[in-house]
Amino acid sequence: MKSPAAATMSCCSQYCFRLFSQSLPFHPSPSISMKNINLNRSNPIFVVRNCSSTSSGPSPITAKPSSKIQKNKNNGLEHDQKLTALREVFGKPGVNIDAYIIPSQDAHQSEYIAECYMRRAYISGFTGSAGTAVVTSHKAALWTDGRYFLQAEKQLSSSWTLMRSGTWGVPSTAEWLNDVLAPGSRIGIDPQFLFSSEAVHELKESVAKSNHELVYLYDVNLVDEVWKEARPLPPNKPIRVHELKYAGVDVSTKLANLRSELTNHGSSAILISMLDEVAWLLNLRGNDVPHSPVMYAYLIVEIDSAKLFVDKSKVTPEVMDYLKKTGIELRAYDSILSEIESLAARGAHLWLDTSSVNAAISSTYATACDKYLETNGSKNKGNNLSGAPTALCKSSPVSLAKAVKNHAELEGMRSSHLRDAAALTEFWSWLEEEMNKNVVLTEVEVADKLLEFRESQAGFIDTSFDTISGSGANGAIIHYRAEPGSCGIVDTQKLFLLDSGAQYLDGTTDITRTVHFGQPSERQKECFTRVLQGHIALDQAVFPENTPGFVLDAFARSSLWKVGLDYRHGTGHGVGAALNVHEGPQSISFRFGNMTPMLKGMIVSNEPGYYEDHAFGIRIENLLYVKEIDTPNRFGGITYIGFEKLTFVPIQTKLVDLTLLSESEIDWLNDYHSQVWEKVIFFAAVIY
Amino acid sequence: MKSPAAATMSCCSQYCFRLFSQSLPFHPSPSISMKNINLNRSNPIFVVRNCSSTSSGPSPITAKPSSKIQKNKNNGLEHDQKLTALREVFGKPGVNIDAYIIPSQDAHQSEYIAECYMRRAYISGFTGSAGTAVVTSHKAALWTDGRYFLQAEKQLSSSWTLMRSGTWGVPSTAEWLNDVLAPGSRIGIDPQFLFSSEAVHELKESVAKSNHELVYLYDVNLVDEVWKEARPLPPNKPIRVHELKYAGVDVSTKLANLRSELTNHGSSAILISMLDEVAWLLNLRGNDVPHSPVMYAYLIVEIDSAKLFVDKSKVTPEVMDYLKKTGIELRAYDSILSEIESLAARGAHLWLDTSSVNAAISSTYATACDKYLETNGSKNKGNNLSGAPTALCKSSPVSLAKAVKNHAELEGMRSSHLRDAAALTEFWSWLEEEMNKNVVLTEVEVADKLLEFRESQAGFIDTSFDTISGSGANGAIIHYRAEPGSCGIVDTQKLFLLDSGAQYLDGTTDITRTVHFGQPSERQKECFTRVLQGHIALDQAVFPENTPGFVLDAFARSSLWKVGLDYRHGTGHGVGAALNVHEGPQSISFRFGNMTPMLKGMIVSNEPGYYEDHAFGIRIENLLYVKEIDTPNRFGGITYIGFEKLTFVPIQTKLVDLTLLSESEIDWLNDYHSQVWEKVIFFAAVIY
Repeated sequence: MKSPAAATMSCCSQYCFRLFSQSLPFHPSPSISMKNINLNRSNPIFVVRNCSSTSSGPSPITAKPSSKIQKNKNNGLEHDQKLTALREVFGKPGVNIDAYIIPSQDAHQSEYIAECYMRRAYISGFTGSAGTAVVTSHKAALWTDGRYFLQAEKQLSSSWTLMRSGTWGVPSTAEWLNDVLAPGSRIGIDPQFLFSSEAVHELKESVAKSNHELVYLYDVNLVDEVWKEARPLPPNKPIRVHELKYAGVDVSTKLANLRSELTNHGSSAILISMLDEVAWLLNLRGNDVPHSPVMYAYLIVEIDSAKLFVDKSKVTPEVMDYLKKTGIELRAYDSILSEIESLAARGAHLWLDTSSVNAAISSTYATACDKYLETNGSKNKGNNLSGAPTALCKSSPVSLAKAVKNHAELEGMRSSHLRDAAALTEFWSWLEEEMNKNVVLTEVEVADKLLEFRESQAGFIDTSFDTISGSGANGAIIHYRAEPGSCGIVDTQKLFLLDSGAQYLDGTTDITRTVHFGQPSERQKECFTRVLQGHIALDQAVFPENTPGFVLDAFARSSLWKVGLDYRHGTGHGVGAALNVHEGPQSISFRFGNMTPMLKGMIVSNEPGYYEDHAFGIRIENLLYVKEIDTPNRFGGITYIGFEKLTFVPIQTKLVDLTLLSESEIDWLNDYHSQVWEKVIFFAAVIY
Repeated sequence: MKSPAAATMSCCSQYCFRLFSQSLPFHPSPSISMKNINLNRSNPIFVVRNCSSTSSGPSPITAKPSSKIQKNKNNGLEHDQKLTALREVFGKPGVNIDAYIIPSQDAHQSEYIAECYMRRAYISGFTGSAGTAVVTSHKAALWTDGRYFLQAEKQLSSSWTLMRSGTWGVPSTAEWLNDVLAPGSRIGIDPQFLFSSEAVHELKESVAKSNHELVYLYDVNLVDEVWKEARPLPPNKPIRVHELKYAGVDVSTKLANLRSELTNHGSSAILISMLDEVAWLLNLRGNDVPHSPVMYAYLIVEIDSAKLFVDKSKVTPEVMDYLKKTGIELRAYDSILSEIESLAARGAHLWLDTSSVNAAISSTYATACDKYLETNGSKNKGNNLSGAPTALCKSSPVSLAKAVKNHAELEGMRSSHLRDAAALTEFWSWLEEEMNKNVVLTEVEVADKLLEFRESQAGFIDTSFDTISGSGANGAIIHYRAEPGSCGIVDTQKLFLLDSGAQYLDGTTDITRTVHFGQPSERQKECFTRVLQGHIALDQAVFPENTPGFVLDAFARSSLWKVGLDYRHGTGHGVGAALNVHEGPQSISFRFGNMTPMLKGMIVSNEPGYYEDHAFGIRIENLLYVKEIDTPNRFGGITYIGFEKLTFVPIQTKLVDLTLLSESEIDWLNDYHSQVWEKVIFFAAVIY
C-alpha cells in the first residue's frame, strides 16, 4: 500500500486546467475559481485504508501489466496433436464416445475464469471469451459470434471449421452433430461445465432426433486428460475477510434475511453457485480469477446451517476462525455433488437458480429426488415440510440483495472512485505531456502506465477487467485487447478510447474516456457530442421507482438516432461493490426481457458510444448510483429516482461541438467539471 | 353532404390570430405573415368527396349529439324484477344451472358494441364499458375496475354487490363462485360472449376446485329471455362499399396476400372475427355499432374460397353485386358454428387468433377435430395437407396488414384531418367568443356545438367515440362522459379538456386540446407545459425501424417525471383509416409485453396528459403517421423512422410557461402554428 504519488500533481492540475479552459467559452465568466472551493481537509480522497486483514497473505496487488500477461501454455503439443490425443481418449473404457462438446464456462458461469478452466481455448487455440468447440472422430468445429470471427480465423488451425453463429445457414451444434455423426452415436459432455439444465435438455432433445445419446462424463474431463501436467493447477490463493466497514452488513444478518426468503418460498435450502454471490453473502474475498475478487466455492444455506464448499488450502487461520464464528461449516469443493444427493435424501426443498446452476448439480438433485421417491414411496410423507424433496427453480434472491448497495458499500465506492479519479487525472495529464513532446507510445505502454498510476492509490488490488486501449480504428472494436507486438500507436492524429477499471479494497471502478491530442475532425466532434448528449440525458433522467432499466436506454440513444447513428451494445450494467465489474440483475439496455426494476442503491454504468468501423470509436462512461430525487410532486404516492455520479474525471471539451448542445447540456458539463475540480483535482493539488 | 360553413371563418381566423399573438414573444419578429404563404388553391382541404356509393342507402350521417343519446330501455322491469326473472330461467329444462355469468362483450371483442348486446348493462343497470356480472340463485355481484367504482356505486341497486377489481382482498369471479355456491354446482355461460379459449379454460379449472361444472348454453342467452321484446333488434343498417380510391388496395390483392400467409404457415383456412378486420379486408363499411363503421360479420378465407357470414338484410344489391365480383359467398351470420364444424370435417387446418376468437368458435372447432379423428382414425391420413385438422393459434395477420396504411389510406387520413381541423378551429373560435360574452354553456352543449361544426364538413359520418368534454375537475376523469342534467359548466374560471374525433368517408380523427379562457394558475401552466414538452419529444423522436412502441413511451413522460408527475394511461394507440379509432397491434405505452415493431405507414396518437384529481385534467393529442426520416447516416444499414403530423389545430399558447421550454421546443411550437396557419386557417379564410 503506497501513498499516492504527489510528484505528478502539478502536471495533473495543469492537464485539467487545459481541459477546463476549453469549457470557458460556455460561460463568459468562469464558474470555477480557487476562492469558491471549500478547503475541506477531512475529505477522505487519499486516506490510506487499513489493509491489515490481508497482512497474513501476500500483497493484495495482483494486477499484471498488459505487456506481461502470460500466453496460454501449449503443453508442447501442436493443435493437431491435441486433437489426436483427445480422440484417443474417446475410445477408453468408461468413456466410449463419438464426439465431445467443450464449452467456455467454468462451473459457476463466471465472466472471467481461472486459466485451468480455459479448456476450449487450450484445445482449439481460439482465446476469445465466447465459443463452443465440438470434436468428433474425424471433424472439429468451433462456434463463436460476430465479435470474434476475425480472431477465430487467425487462431484456428486448418483442422478446425469455424462456425459463424448468427450467420444465415450456419447450423447449431446439435444440427451439425446430427449431420456429421452416424445415427445412434454417443456425445460426451462434462456436466459441470454445461449450462443450464434447460440448455442440456434442449440439446438432448435435438440430438435424439438422430438417435444420439448425450453421455454425462462426471468423473473425467477429456481435455484435462490431454492437457495433463501442463494444465495450470486450480488457483489456491488465500481468501481474505472483506471487512465489515466495507461490507456494511454482517454475515449473520445477511444469512437471516436469506433464510426468511427461503421460508417465505417454502424452501428449506438454497445452493449459491455464482462466485460473487458466495463472496458477497459471506463478506469474503478471493483471488482465484483475474479481475474478480472471488474464490471458487459453492455455498449451501439451510434454515439452521450453512456449508461452504471450497479448497481448504485457500482458507487462512484467520478466515477459518471467522467462518467458525459465523457458524459456517467447511466442506471440500469437490464434495458438492454428494452434498446435493444428501440434501435430496433428507427431503430438502432446494432453491436452485437454474440460470446459473450447472447441469451436474440440477441433474444430480433430480436423480436423487427420484431415488428418494423410490425408496420412501408415500409412506414417509410428513417427515419434512411437505413430503418428498422438490426443487424451486427461481432466480437467486442474493442477486438483487447484492445489487442494492448499503451505506458502507456506497461509501467505499465513492471513496475508491475519488482515488481512481486522481490516478486517471494524473494519467491523462502525463499522456497529454507525452503527446505534446511527440513521444511515440503503444496502446499497451499507455495501458501499463495507467496501471502504474493506479497502483499508487491506496487499497488498489487489480484491474477490474482487461484494459481496452484502442487508438484510431482499434477504438471501433468494442472488445479490443491490445497485445504487445501487434498493437497500435497512440498519437496526435487519432481518437483514443480508453476503457479501464480497478479493484480496490473498498470498491470497484469502470470508466471510459475518449480523447484527441491533435485536431479532431468535424465528423468526430459531431459523433462525440451526440454520445455526450446521450450520456447527459441518462445521467439527468428522473423516473418512477421500479421502472425497468430498458425504459431508460432510449434516452442515451436519442441524439444519435436523430442522425441515423446507434451503437450495438447496452448502455449500462450493474457493478459490484469491491466485487465483479459486471453484475446483474439490473441493466440499461435494449434487452427488453430484463424486467428488473431500478431501485435506490443500485449502481449502473452510463456508457453510450459510437463506433465507425475501420475509423474510430467513441465511448463516454461514468458509474452512477440510483438515489431518491426530491421532486416537488410525488404522483401516485411513489418515489421518483435518478442518478448521482460516482466517477469524477474530466471529459475532453475539445471534442464537443458546442452548437449542438442546449444551454442545459452546457450547464451539465460545466457543473460536472466544477465537481471534478472540487472533489479531485484542486483538492489533490492543495494537499500535495 | 353540406359544404363547409363559410360564415364563421372571419371569427375563426380571429381566434387563431389570438392564439398566434401569444406565440409572438417567442420570436421578436413574427414568423407568420400573409405574404409568406403560398396561395395554392389546389390544396384539397375543403374538397367535397364524392359520396355516390352511399346514395342507395340512408344519409351516412349517423352521429347523435350528446344531449340526445338514448338511455337504455328498462323493459318496464325494475332491477330486482330482472334478477327474479333471470333466476326463474335457471331452472328451465335444458338450462338447469345455479349461476350465470354475463360479460360485457359482443361476440367479436369489439370496443363499442350494439345496444342489443349490452346485456350486462341491462341486467345490472351499470353502464360502464368494462365489467362482468354474475348472478346466482341468491346473490348478484358485479366486477369492474377503478375507472368505474363511483359510477357503479351509483347505478347498482342494493341487490348487487360491487366487486372492486384490483383492490386488495377482492375475490376473482371464480373464487367468489367457489365461495357462495354449494360444491358441484352448474355455472352457465353463453360461449359466444366469453373470451378467450384460454380465459374459459382457466375459469373451468378454477371452479373445478369446488367440483362446479361450466355449462355451455349455446342455444339460449338467458338475459335475452328476460329482456324479451324490449331488447333492441340486432342492427341491420345497410353495408356500403368503401371505395377503392379510399381503400387503396382491392380485395383480390388483399385476399391473395392473406392466402400466401396461410400457405406459408401451413394453414388452409382462417377465421376473421374482429369486425374491423372483416371490413378492412373486404373494403366494406357498416353501420351496426356507434362510432365504428363496421358490420356484425365473420369471414372465413380458404385457399380457393371466401365466405362472409352476415345478416342478409344488410346487404344492398350494390354490395351483393360487389361480393359476387370479388368471389365472396354469402352465408347467414348464425351459421358460423356449423361452418366451423364443416371445416374440421373437411380436415381444414384452421388459423385462429385465440386472442379475439370467442369460446364458442374455438370449442366448436376443437370438438369437431376430435370427432374427425374418431370417425376417420388414421386411415384417412394424406387426404389433405397433413392428415387430421389442426388449429394454428396465432395473431391474425390482418391486424398488422391493416395497421400499415397504403398511400390512398394515408391521403384520406390527411385530407379528412384537414377538414376536421377546419371544423375544430371554427369551433374553438366560436367557443372563445361565447366565453368572452360570458355565455353560460354546459359541457354537453359545447360537445353538441362541436358536432354541428363537424357535420358541416364533407364526408362526415359519425363521431369516432363519445366526446370527452370535461371542465375543471371533470377533466381529471380520464373516461369522463358529460350527461345532460348532471354535467359541468364551461367557463373562464377553469381548464377545459376536449377529446373528440370523427368518422369521415375517407378517414378517422382523434384530437384533444386543453384550454383556459380566463387566467390559468402557474401550477396549471407548469403542468400544461410539461405535457407539451412530452408531446413535442415524442413528435420529434427518430428511431430505428422495428423499434417496439414502448421504447418511445418514456420520451413523452420524461419532463413530467423530472418533477414527480406522471399519467396513468398509455401515450399512443393505433388508429384505423376510416375505421376504428382504436386499433392494434402497435401502441406506445408502458405495456412492455407488446413487442409490435413500429413500421412505416402506421398511424398512432401522441397524447400525454396530466390529471390532478378533483382539480383539472390536461391532455394534448395529435395523430401522427410513421414515416422514413432522411437521416444523414444509416447505421446498421437500416432505415430510421419518425413521425409526421396529421392533426393541425392550434395549441393554446396562453397555457405555456415559456421559461421551461428550450429554444428548439419554442421553434417546434412556432413551426407547428405556421403549418396550421398555412394548411387550415389562412387558406380557409382566403377561399371563403
